[in-house]
Amino acid sequence: MNIYQKEILLDQKPRVFHLITEEIKSAIPELKLIRTGILNVFICHTSASLTVNENADPDVRKDFETHFNSMVPENSADYLHTSEGPDDMTSHIKSSILGCSLNIPVTDGKLNKGIWQGIYLCEHRNSGGRRKLVLTLSETEKN
Amino acid sequence: MNIYQKEILLDQKPRVFHLITEEIKSAIPELKLIRTGILNVFICHTSASLTVNENADPDVRKDFETHFNSMVPENSADYLHTSEGPDDMTSHIKSSILGCSLNIPVTDGKLNKGIWQGIYLCEHRNSGGRRKLVLTLSETEKN
Amino acid sequence: MNIYQKEILLDQKPRVFHLITEEIKSAIPELKLIRTGILNVFICHTSASLTVNENADPDVRKDFETHFNSMVPENSADYLHTSEGPDDMTSHIKSSILGCSLNIPVTDGKLNKGIWQGIYLCEHRNSGGRRKLVLTLSETEKN
Repeated sequence: MNIYQKEILLDQKPRVFHLITEEIKSAIPELKLIRTGILNVFICHTSASLTVNENADPDVRKDFETHFNSMVPENSADYLHTSEGPDDMTSHIKSSILGCSLNIPVTDGKLNKGIWQGIYLCEHRNSGGRRKLVLTLSETEKN
Repeated sequence: MNIYQKEILLDQKPRVFHLITEEIKSAIPELKLIRTGILNVFICHTSASLTVNENADPDVRKDFETHFNSMVPENSADYLHTSEGPDDMTSHIKSSILGCSLNIPVTDGKLNKGIWQGIYLCEHRNSGGRRKLVLTLSETEKN
Repeated sequence: MNIYQKEILLDQKPRVFHLITEEIKSAIPELKLIRTGILNVFICHTSASLTVNENADPDVRKDFETHFNSMVPENSADYLHTSEGPDDMTSHIKSSILGCSLNIPVTDGKLNKGIWQGIYLCEHRNSGGRRKLVLTLSETEKN
């Protein structure tokens, strides 16, 4: 039984949805050594989030931005927590809808995901700064 | 410490929300041997998803379909990624709102969930084909 | 390798979003002994949910209530499953959007989360009763 845990700091990214599968895989090369396990990816922030979605067509990520801006509108007069601007409270809501933690199975040294699945960093703030992730890779032996 | 990992392919299902708790439990009979652990269920697709919800009244699953069709409308002119039809981009968005990965505790050979909780396959495409799941069951011994 | 699993019953809480980080940490003091691992928090209900979000300003939790009431409206005539009142079906939908299961990394005896992140119990029912959580803390040794 082995475990690898690593904190990484992503470069600052503009507000939209970003494909970060390769950044994660290169940060944790021990993945190649794992026969059976789970990779947990956790984002340590409340105004950015993580999801898994389509990794081929960049329009999908643009459409995510369009949809979430419409579903969680910044021009709502109903929010109280807006001291940091109109993208403050909406970012918190978007992050909870999408979530802060992913669990992806690992098999024979690879993420056992669909070929069209990629890991997205969802940056909801106009200027969110660098984002910290905690990667926890649990290897468990078959008996 | 034991781990059991299995890939299963569900039969093609029509677009709606489906209760698949029994399909999952019967695919991984090793569950009965586990004293304490976690079951991870992961769906390898970006236009279908997984959630846990009410397992008794079939109307709940109909109401999920109604709600998600309203919250993520197919008649929106705003989406760019629509080459496979109006249920293409909306399925990607629904799948990220609901999620692709479930983690359910296991205690004394059973899923330790509420009596009203069941596992849903959320099929968002009109014709989504067969869906692949990866089941990872981690047993961990109490000390 | 150690695992600690515990069921806890929260006191009944009114319908809104509640910060329960301290309740969870005090229920599982073994957390302090863990060098590297994952804490899974699972809620055994279909009309309340769990999320991670901002832990400082109580207005954030009020704004969550406002937003979710608007995004999943109780006055919709479209729902079939309403036998327990207008907050019945909407609570099921809200709980699946937010989720029933959290996975948070543990490092050196502490939850390895951002300083602004707290664990929310999202009580969607007007009178939801006591809520049961299953806490599963998996410790895994570095090799």
